[in-house]
Amino acid sequence: MRNRIGFTFLIIALLAPGIGLKAQDKPYQDVAKTIIDSALVNQKAYYLLRELTSQIGGRLSGSPQAAAAVEWGRQTFMKTGADRVFLQPVMVPHWVRGPQETAAVVNSSQLGTVPLTITALGGSVATPSGGLTAEVVEVKSLKEAEALGEKARGKIVFYSRPMDRRLRQTFPAYGGAVDQRVAGPSVAAKVGAVAVLVRSMTTRLDDVPHTGTLHYMEGVKRIPAAALSTMDSELLSSLLKKEPHLRVHMEMSPRWLPDVLSYNVIGEIRGSEKPEEIVLLGAHLDSWDLAQGAHDDGAGVVQVIEALRLIKKLGLKPKRTIRGVLYMNEENGLRGGLAYADSSARKGWRHIAALESDAGGFTPVGVGVSAPDSIVKSIARWSYLLKQINADRIGKGGGGADISPLKKFGVPMLGLRVVSHRYFDYHHSALDTFDKVNPRELELGAATMAIMAYVLAMEGI
Amino acid sequence: MRNRIGFTFLIIALLAPGIGLKAQDKPYQDVAKTIIDSALVNQKAYYLLRELTSQIGGRLSGSPQAAAAVEWGRQTFMKTGADRVFLQPVMVPHWVRGPQETAAVVNSSQLGTVPLTITALGGSVATPSGGLTAEVVEVKSLKEAEALGEKARGKIVFYSRPMDRRLRQTFPAYGGAVDQRVAGPSVAAKVGAVAVLVRSMTTRLDDVPHTGTLHYMEGVKRIPAAALSTMDSELLSSLLKKEPHLRVHMEMSPRWLPDVLSYNVIGEIRGSEKPEEIVLLGAHLDSWDLAQGAHDDGAGVVQVIEALRLIKKLGLKPKRTIRGVLYMNEENGLRGGLAYADSSARKGWRHIAALESDAGGFTPVGVGVSAPDSIVKSIARWSYLLKQINADRIGKGGGGADISPLKKFGVPMLGLRVVSHRYFDYHHSALDTFDKVNPRELELGAATMAIMAYVLAMEGI
Repeated sequence: MRNRIGFTFLIIALLAPGIGLKAQDKPYQDVAKTIIDSALVNQKAYYLLRELTSQIGGRLSGSPQAAAAVEWGRQTFMKTGADRVFLQPVMVPHWVRGPQETAAVVNSSQLGTVPLTITALGGSVATPSGGLTAEVVEVKSLKEAEALGEKARGKIVFYSRPMDRRLRQTFPAYGGAVDQRVAGPSVAAKVGAVAVLVRSMTTRLDDVPHTGTLHYMEGVKRIPAAALSTMDSELLSSLLKKEPHLRVHMEMSPRWLPDVLSYNVIGEIRGSEKPEEIVLLGAHLDSWDLAQGAHDDGAGVVQVIEALRLIKKLGLKPKRTIRGVLYMNEENGLRGGLAYADSSARKGWRHIAALESDAGGFTPVGVGVSAPDSIVKSIARWSYLLKQINADRIGKGGGGADISPLKKFGVPMLGLRVVSHRYFDYHHSALDTFDKVNPRELELGAATMAIMAYVLAMEGI
Repeated sequence: MRNRIGFTFLIIALLAPGIGLKAQDKPYQDVAKTIIDSALVNQKAYYLLRELTSQIGGRLSGSPQAAAAVEWGRQTFMKTGADRVFLQPVMVPHWVRGPQETAAVVNSSQLGTVPLTITALGGSVATPSGGLTAEVVEVKSLKEAEALGEKARGKIVFYSRPMDRRLRQTFPAYGGAVDQRVAGPSVAAKVGAVAVLVRSMTTRLDDVPHTGTLHYMEGVKRIPAAALSTMDSELLSSLLKKEPHLRVHMEMSPRWLPDVLSYNVIGEIRGSEKPEEIVLLGAHLDSWDLAQGAHDDGAGVVQVIEALRLIKKLGLKPKRTIRGVLYMNEENGLRGGLAYADSSARKGWRHIAALESDAGGFTPVGVGVSAPDSIVKSIARWSYLLKQINADRIGKGGGGADISPLKKFGVPMLGLRVVSHRYFDYHHSALDTFDKVNPRELELGAATMAIMAYVLAMEGI
């Protein structure tokens, strides 16, 4: 009997298309290959990114460009074949950069007046009209700023700690320096400072400032704060060593306007067997205003759309729903991510995994997973599908800001891992433009997301 | 007794610095970490590359810039601490691009005159003064060109087969298309063509032509040959579909001049125990004339220098000699590589391995090795040293053009493997400039070379 069953099984295995022993060893190999081929040949994500960046450009929450991006996202999901497309309303903050953004050292005995390249940090209040002028005091940390005490009163506090170049990945280097930008203004205000300059968050020496959000603490005076280019930060540090009583004049005119109605844009492919179970692919539609938001996060946006398009175009029928979410307001509020999580709780959406792309459209190297070890291991079993493009490093630690509010529901958080060396060259600055994106790198990221979404939608976690 | 020996060994292992059990498990971990830290912090290779590209620029064999690069290489090796620096004379070909490089479709009934962006292939002869005008016949391969027979007589043969975008790495895609550029002119001349246009070797759609060497066969008429930008190649193909009797006018004025005396530049750190055994690090100093040769192969040149500098600066004393060779004339003759191999035979130099960097200064992913399996395996045992920067993919298949003439002596051929997606965006075109290089990516390549060179010089193969 056992022999006969064995023989019967063998015959079936050999004859049935797609379930031969070899295919069973490594299922979805052919699908992965086809997805990658199609992405590399057609480069649709790249052409979509050209549209988004060149026809709309920077799209900070509340701006007309952000509204245009919502409509573009909706139409693009529809054109590329999503089964259902809908908008999710969310009120977003509306901060606008003003026309004035200037600064200069005004009393160097060596150099006279020395112009400094600055840009307002996102959310900063304006200087008084006509600007302010004050002595500068340099610190390397929040702790040093606090310790200034009375010495900070009436001064401009200059946070100058650079990102640590030694770190092998740039995101931890960013994480290790960005407290100066986020909390620095309020910490300085507490000890009486009148304004703040922060060394730009980039590992490069360049002459463009890199903006990004600040967080004013409740009950603390809001003082103007600007990013200073890394080259001017080095210059200012070296001048201060010789001339500790340097005065800087700075003028900025940003404004806060009333909140604006905006939207997350959602497109999905309905699951054929368990449509109520959702694999979420996320990225954020808003970007800083200084450039086109090509890598941050236009790349992620078109990768999400492309992942759905590839699956649909290739005629794949996932058992579970694959949902793309283009979040609004990641950069200065996370309101989109929070609104999505609220809806999710109210409507009982069941996410089996959420995968975000928000590290730039660079060469993918794998997927990071924040989840219990058993789930990390389960997801990592698909790494062989990504081996052919060297994107098979699936391991612990991943996610993204937009999807992070889902964490409290126990959703496994996944993040697309990419080569990170160039990301902060462009991040939040005028340099984040379409020409910095390589179509092959961008498409391989989209293919990685499509492959992961499809196998998870077929096989679950 | 056994217990006592065990105990004694344990004590020694715990007390002796550097030979604790942990360190013995994974030797050279600390050295690798220090090399990488130092490379990332100081970014010397990047500043050297800025010198080479901005102060000298493109440096085709025989040009004054190539001579300047030789002297720069010699001085830089000396400044960065090589124990011995010497030049190795080599006669190199001297081809110069002329002032005329123009082409246009002259008789489109649709569009009238349509300018085409071309550049002479390296080594091409000139058109007759005033140019030539002929009908164009498009082919996708050498075979199709041969098959034209009499239909090619008096015509311009247009090779239009693109690089295959589906390939996961770009070098095989280049390898699969470049026969059109190398052999295409002579194959077309054999069937009576008067000139050749070749679709540029890049996966990008761009409007700049990418040059590169051609090879005229002995006894075949030398006809002028140019690279056509990929965008104009697509345009010409689509026009030819509607108007098969299109005529193109082209004019180019390159010249061949007498051979010139030039040099390979060699710098080395003498081995402390077996100085006669050499670990060679190689790259090529010459570059095409259209840009600065930043990635091809300025990046490799500064990585070789930086690898030696790091080892010297950190006070490491390799047992075997580490020799950096900056080869001349990789691009259009390989005379430097051949001359080095000749010297090697004459002088009995004993190379235990040769590692070349000539794939651009991009993120390293590992080292390819062409050698018997046992040697590949032996070299791959060091991959854990490169794990911290994700450059640990050491496997079969590697080398480089410059070191290839050493293969006949049984020298294991190693090549630095990097993320290849951007390389052909810039390759052999006006786009290969310093601004395309990221300092972290460049330095990690240098660190990878330094680590491999050091462990091989310490431990042998």
